[in-house]
Amino acid sequence: MRRVPSRAVYDRAAIDEILDEAMIAHLGFVHEGQPFVIPTLHARVGDTVYFHGSAASRAIRTLSSGVAACLTVTLLDGLVLARSAFHTSLNYRSVVMLGSATAVAGPDERRLALQAFMERLIPGRWVEVRPPSAKELKGTRVLALPLDETSAKVRTGPPEDDRSDLELPVWAGVIPLHTTAGAPIPDRLTPPQSTASVAVTTWTPQRKTNTPRSIA
Amino acid sequence: MRRVPSRAVYDRAAIDEILDEAMIAHLGFVHEGQPFVIPTLHARVGDTVYFHGSAASRAIRTLSSGVAACLTVTLLDGLVLARSAFHTSLNYRSVVMLGSATAVAGPDERRLALQAFMERLIPGRWVEVRPPSAKELKGTRVLALPLDETSAKVRTGPPEDDRSDLELPVWAGVIPLHTTAGAPIPDRLTPPQSTASVAVTTWTPQRKTNTPRSIA
Repeated sequence: MRRVPSRAVYDRAAIDEILDEAMIAHLGFVHEGQPFVIPTLHARVGDTVYFHGSAASRAIRTLSSGVAACLTVTLLDGLVLARSAFHTSLNYRSVVMLGSATAVAGPDERRLALQAFMERLIPGRWVEVRPPSAKELKGTRVLALPLDETSAKVRTGPPEDDRSDLELPVWAGVIPLHTTAGAPIPDRLTPPQSTASVAVTTWTPQRKTNTPRSIA
Repeated sequence: MRRVPSRAVYDRAAIDEILDEAMIAHLGFVHEGQPFVIPTLHARVGDTVYFHGSAASRAIRTLSSGVAACLTVTLLDGLVLARSAFHTSLNYRSVVMLGSATAVAGPDERRLALQAFMERLIPGRWVEVRPPSAKELKGTRVLALPLDETSAKVRTGPPEDDRSDLELPVWAGVIPLHTTAGAPIPDRLTPPQSTASVAVTTWTPQRKTNTPRSIA
């Protein structure tokens, strides 16, 4: 196992994998001098990351004006227990995207972006549900951020202890972290034993996505 | 079950619980007009949230100068599968803190903050490991952000479908999400069967923290 305490990653395939595995992103923008960081759904399609929100939200209105933005995703992979407090750490993978978002104008492109959000989060679900109406599409803003200025950081592997600490009688290693799904909870109008939804019965957080190469 | 699609929360106990359960935060700041969002460890102690980093990092240097900051934590609790694409959602709890960070000057306070980071992440670990040396403390910047301008948003409960969609033959409900720990992986110098560390054998992501009320 190689020891890689913290490594900048520029490989596009690695960046895509992190973006696609993360269920949510944190989106940064500045409004009247104050930075804001808000959680958001995102979906990568080819060289673009989409996010969306209500036309009424401050974040979406601010970002639609083309201000500088930052979209960050982080996956926690493990607790790194070193023999010293100082070298205790986390294994993680994160991607930071800088750029300016542009609003997706056409309703067809907006619909495809919404499909990408859903297919990424819950593969197979799109065909099970009622698609967005014209009115719903009208109230939804979809913004696109290009994968231009993007970097990733990855920490993986065991703790990186100082040589002088290696003799200490301390358990050292990694506690892996995973996201897991509990048993699906049907709502009050869904029959408890219903297994009609393939999307529900096959859902796993360790999914591989299969998004189209581009929307527009 | 009450239907609460998205609710602003101002209750301090609820805010504390979200901050304390989240393993990492996303920290926003502006550098030369560009917002940045970076993942960071955090620890709440009383009315203050601490985060830290290397004295050499751009984020820490920028934030030490007292610029406006935003610290956000988000917990994902479930996928909300509605009968329509439009109402498909996530159950989550998030906290957004606005303010300016100040550097923690004294080494004793810095040590206590580092202890809080570790006790929050891995309860019981602090007494098992070598404590920070004077040199390590010197290279570490700890910043404090007061819990002044803080808000939380929570979405919980089943999907919120349009009345006209309730007859659709679609499975609707919630897939709960959890963070779980895999079997601890000892490093190459730790005996495989070693169970010396109580912090390792008792670790669970659903921990309750017991932080001191204040550091300074």
